Amino acid sequence: MTSSEHTALVFLSCGGTIEKTVLPQQGQLGFDHSRVSEWAATCRIAQTWRSETLMLIDSLEMTDADRNTVAAHVARIQESQVVILHGTDTMVQTAAVVAKHRQPHQTVVFTGAMIPVSQSNSDGLFNIGMATAAVQLLEPGVYIAMSGQVFPADAVRKNREKGVFEAVATQAEEPSQHQNDNGTLRITKRKWTGSFR
Amino acid sequence: MTSSEHTALVFLSCGGTIEKTVLPQQGQLGFDHSRVSEWAATCRIAQTWRSETLMLIDSLEMTDADRNTVAAHVARIQESQVVILHGTDTMVQTAAVVAKHRQPHQTVVFTGAMIPVSQSNSDGLFNIGMATAAVQLLEPGVYIAMSGQVFPADAVRKNREKGVFEAVATQAEEPSQHQNDNGTLRITKRKWTGSFR
Amino acid sequence: MTSSEHTALVFLSCGGTIEKTVLPQQGQLGFDHSRVSEWAATCRIAQTWRSETLMLIDSLEMTDADRNTVAAHVARIQESQVVILHGTDTMVQTAAVVAKHRQPHQTVVFTGAMIPVSQSNSDGLFNIGMATAAVQLLEPGVYIAMSGQVFPADAVRKNREKGVFEAVATQAEEPSQHQNDNGTLRITKRKWTGSFR
Amino acid sequence: MTSSEHTALVFLSCGGTIEKTVLPQQGQLGFDHSRVSEWAATCRIAQTWRSETLMLIDSLEMTDADRNTVAAHVARIQESQVVILHGTDTMVQTAAVVAKHRQPHQTVVFTGAMIPVSQSNSDGLFNIGMATAAVQLLEPGVYIAMSGQVFPADAVRKNREKGVFEAVATQAEEPSQHQNDNGTLRITKRKWTGSFR
Repeated sequence: MTSSEHTALVFLSCGGTIEKTVLPQQGQLGFDHSRVSEWAATCRIAQTWRSETLMLIDSLEMTDADRNTVAAHVARIQESQVVILHGTDTMVQTAAVVAKHRQPHQTVVFTGAMIPVSQSNSDGLFNIGMATAAVQLLEPGVYIAMSGQVFPADAVRKNREKGVFEAVATQAEEPSQHQNDNGTLRITKRKWTGSFR
Repeated sequence: MTSSEHTALVFLSCGGTIEKTVLPQQGQLGFDHSRVSEWAATCRIAQTWRSETLMLIDSLEMTDADRNTVAAHVARIQESQVVILHGTDTMVQTAAVVAKHRQPHQTVVFTGAMIPVSQSNSDGLFNIGMATAAVQLLEPGVYIAMSGQVFPADAVRKNREKGVFEAVATQAEEPSQHQNDNGTLRITKRKWTGSFR
Repeated sequence: MTSSEHTALVFLSCGGTIEKTVLPQQGQLGFDHSRVSEWAATCRIAQTWRSETLMLIDSLEMTDADRNTVAAHVARIQESQVVILHGTDTMVQTAAVVAKHRQPHQTVVFTGAMIPVSQSNSDGLFNIGMATAAVQLLEPGVYIAMSGQVFPADAVRKNREKGVFEAVATQAEEPSQHQNDNGTLRITKRKWTGSFR
Repeated sequence: MTSSEHTALVFLSCGGTIEKTVLPQQGQLGFDHSRVSEWAATCRIAQTWRSETLMLIDSLEMTDADRNTVAAHVARIQESQVVILHGTDTMVQTAAVVAKHRQPHQTVVFTGAMIPVSQSNSDGLFNIGMATAAVQLLEPGVYIAMSGQVFPADAVRKNREKGVFEAVATQAEEPSQHQNDNGTLRITKRKWTGSFR
């Protein structure tokens, strides 16, 4: 495996609200086909990237088998920069499974949307932008980019009442590397010392 | 100044293609009013942010006085996370001026668009997403988020023929911290050790 | 009542798919507020118009009482040119009730959409355009503008399998003025002899 | 030529603001390819239609030769229902040339937009909707559908200061069929007695 394969960028779509569109016959939101490759073109990403659609489902209907499918796929691909589009309701659960199986060189960032990209007021492309930057700037690990922030995947939850993602204490047994003693997240800025190509 | 003021996020708009819209009387692209606060709402940014419009001009028409205005403003505000919307043609020049005057605690990320957000196929909100993530993840300094990547502001140029931003050797007299001996950018991933709130 | 009041244009919204938007908390299509006045501005209608929202509901949930409310409202307003936004599933039924109560000087055109205007691939503004032209060009009566055509309201049905509106034999007991002996609609073009202001 | 050929619908594009998009390299409005067939699909037109692109130019740059090309094309095609997309600045002039050469069975409706369809706040699809209804409802002749109204092509002008189309006295030497003695347009509503298929 060459270095360039290691640093390449891949978008994996699992569906979720970000991929939904109104189906004319039903008059309801649903899926027809993935737009992920169309979006990457719109966003004018100049480096090498590729996209793949793993499934197109509502994340509330995602089973353990589905999560294992996603994790096994991440464990198999060559890319180090992995952006995963996913429904928001169970994004944290799938991220936890992927965290167990990802390769050591991989940075995985989950994102999605509260409003489908097919709607004119969507947060989707902004969120993909956050994920695309984060996946290149952060060391290997699993993260979630939503609500204007990037969170370690084991230190975030979706607050359904507010419709936002928010930081929580990590689930790890030992004190988290991400937290101070008082439970707030430690603030340490990163030094930009290179590039991601 | 409290810690929370130091870590707050601000969007400063200088105009550029990202802010342009078609003026119906002229049938040409131009400016009417800034959409930056509207976009931040659309993008569902949950943390504290504010926005300000400094000017709404085409970056080809930006004078040295204009660049000094931008830099002086950055030197005066309290926020540590500064996203600046700017036309792409002279973004690198303005970033160089801001780099001389920014406060030591500030991370400044310039972004813009090749296609206005008012167009349905815009790269604008994606780029703002990249900038919003980068400004929270990178240590103090000045950066440019365009073409799917985040660059140190002194190591990037706009390739007008291709319509993309690309890495270049830094202008610094001493060997750049960002480059290897062969002129390529050094690859060093960052460890996520905290948060940005 | 002056002549200008008689020829003025009004948009009445009853909701339907055309008015739906994705509600972020639920991740499903629903209603928040009517966009009808915003659309009329976007469409650059230069003559006098006003808009009113009567209800914002899915037309499958519309009751007889709701239909009577719409019809009573049409019977009460001054405008001669009445465009009604309505869900497609029971548009024909509401049109039949309105036909019994409309004022003799009124031309009423129902329209809606298969895809909400909030989606980027909506048929909604096109349909409102058809209705806006038809309401000015046709003599008093009740019509439906959908699927690229304008139909008399008593000679059209929604074909749910195909997702299109199509002409049918009128329900009138005596031979319809709209039909030839073989059941097809008679073709008679109208002479434009004036204007609608 | 069968009756169905006579009543079929065609969209002819000559460009104009309605077809413009932002060219990323230039950062200015221009043309890449016609969207007319894409729009007709979006608008869910159920009857038979076809589209053709004659030219993609700004109507201020349209020459007499160009106008003759358009008129000759209309004189040659089979369809009775002809919608022409055209820049707004010289739409009236081209319509006058087409009026001299159209076939007796043809209804021709010109339309365009003040804001390109590629922009999120465009009047374009609404205007195409007006034209699509008018071309089916009006007797043979040449018309312009803009600013929320349908005008006979010899009784309208673009008011550039206001950015709207408005009725004017016809240019005909004899008193116009479209006007009353006082110069206002005569108001006569049309009886819908059939269909357009």
